[in-house]
Amino acid sequence: MYYVGIDLGGTAIKGGIVDENAKIILKKEVKTPVEAGYEGVIGEIISLINSLLDEAKLNTKDIKSIGIGIPGVASKEGLVYYAHNLFWKNVPLSDMLKKEFKDLPIYVENDATVACVAEYACGAMKDKKTGVMLTLGTGVGGGIIIDGKVFSGSHGLGSEIGHMVVGENFYDCNCGKNGCLETFSSATAIINYAKKLIKEENKDTLIMEKVQNDMEKIDAKVIIDSAKEGDYIANKAVDNLVKYLAIGITNIMNIIDPEVICIGGGLSKSGNFLLNKINSEVSKYLLFKDLEYGKIVIGKLENDGGIIGSAMLGK
Amino acid sequence: MYYVGIDLGGTAIKGGIVDENAKIILKKEVKTPVEAGYEGVIGEIISLINSLLDEAKLNTKDIKSIGIGIPGVASKEGLVYYAHNLFWKNVPLSDMLKKEFKDLPIYVENDATVACVAEYACGAMKDKKTGVMLTLGTGVGGGIIIDGKVFSGSHGLGSEIGHMVVGENFYDCNCGKNGCLETFSSATAIINYAKKLIKEENKDTLIMEKVQNDMEKIDAKVIIDSAKEGDYIANKAVDNLVKYLAIGITNIMNIIDPEVICIGGGLSKSGNFLLNKINSEVSKYLLFKDLEYGKIVIGKLENDGGIIGSAMLGK
Repeated sequence: MYYVGIDLGGTAIKGGIVDENAKIILKKEVKTPVEAGYEGVIGEIISLINSLLDEAKLNTKDIKSIGIGIPGVASKEGLVYYAHNLFWKNVPLSDMLKKEFKDLPIYVENDATVACVAEYACGAMKDKKTGVMLTLGTGVGGGIIIDGKVFSGSHGLGSEIGHMVVGENFYDCNCGKNGCLETFSSATAIINYAKKLIKEENKDTLIMEKVQNDMEKIDAKVIIDSAKEGDYIANKAVDNLVKYLAIGITNIMNIIDPEVICIGGGLSKSGNFLLNKINSEVSKYLLFKDLEYGKIVIGKLENDGGIIGSAMLGK
Repeated sequence: MYYVGIDLGGTAIKGGIVDENAKIILKKEVKTPVEAGYEGVIGEIISLINSLLDEAKLNTKDIKSIGIGIPGVASKEGLVYYAHNLFWKNVPLSDMLKKEFKDLPIYVENDATVACVAEYACGAMKDKKTGVMLTLGTGVGGGIIIDGKVFSGSHGLGSEIGHMVVGENFYDCNCGKNGCLETFSSATAIINYAKKLIKEENKDTLIMEKVQNDMEKIDAKVIIDSAKEGDYIANKAVDNLVKYLAIGITNIMNIIDPEVICIGGGLSKSGNFLLNKINSEVSKYLLFKDLEYGKIVIGKLENDGGIIGSAMLGK
């Protein structure tokens, strides 16, 4: 038997056929027609699934389930409450797909939860029972596995770890609160903080050199690359991100105490440079310094995580 | 069948025999001989259990399990890592009790977890599947029930919700961190904050009237009573407690999304006065203001919660 996994993003829809061993046997990608509204996007998802099945010479009887990772929040029944980048509100994604794929179970989960499932199925959280995923990208996403199952709370509103308040910040979060983890530890956050430092400290920095003095060109990679080369401002920005990320991670350890905490998303590509700083900072905040807590690891699945994880929602 | 529940505190050991319906059929209380060390205290627990069984005319065959709520942290195997008020470190509580009560399963959990189990068994969380308990006392304790089972994480170190960092505070927590929930929302915290306000704002306050101008006599009840009477300083202190408690509660909603969040401990005796303020503040911080989150309630079981909850660990 096979599984269909769909990674629905604001710019692309990636789809794949995945086998029982969480291996992708075929994958395809199309542009997300955001401007065509939810009906247009869902139509595109249906075409993509049908074209995957055709090309793989499979029919729906060979498929166990369809899973979809969305950039938003959905109910357990697959009603998408919100997906801001797609301009969706209360879109009955599962119901619309069920009209086309009548006999197949449809699973809809937040994209960070899906990334978590992928790492659990065949990545950095394999063979663990309880794990938490943090995806550090434009925002900070969260996924939770407890006893080998996706955990998203009583109303499907849990694992929104990016909106955990961990301190007090110089600007408010999009959600209206102050101090959300994602205002400290996302790509957006490190860019905001680096720009603030550059304006305030009036120091030479490699960051500005690398962007030819065009502040608008600063991205997270430029900051991290500059930090690796020893730049003062860049390291200060990375250290601020790491400080609050470490607070967020120890909060998770104090509440959920998972076997493993997995860091994914674009920022995780900085690998051991980031991981070493995180481990060193987390060790300062541990409640019981002589007891064993979960391990912090970097995710192994990059772009394929969305397809694999959404497929494995049905396993 | 019956269950034995022991509520081990820094001043008293309360024990009881509890039936299948979570009703106490007999209870007794003795002083905790802290100065006699862990062997003395455990000896006293054994005597208390034997005397409960004698008086109830039961023998160990009528008993399904023994549960103990401790003011500290224990492993799943009942090794007490820490119980600061008792000066315990790495005390093999379960193993020592097993020598006396050979055939009985022994369960050891943190006292806030035990309070959580009691509210779940027959109190404010009855008939819910996923609930979180916050006990507001000298510190802030936490208990988590997921899918009807106690959840304390992979190493037994979870549900330490009082040590979740929720902001930045004017003094550090005993644990060494800054901004722990218990430095904002415990009885100790509100006393510290009220004293700070009295010193800084130099305003007349009912609090000082009620303690005959002896600042050392200020306790949480005096502050809350003064707040209920409309006192400015007292309300400012309560509002600060509530602000960070609301942040802590919304953090829990964003991570665990429980069906119910139950407030217990000494401060919960202020009932609706506190609950109304909490609800009003939480509503400001909800991530999805038009979606349904868990209900916040005040615990129903006061002093008996420790006995009932520890007994029900075995059910």
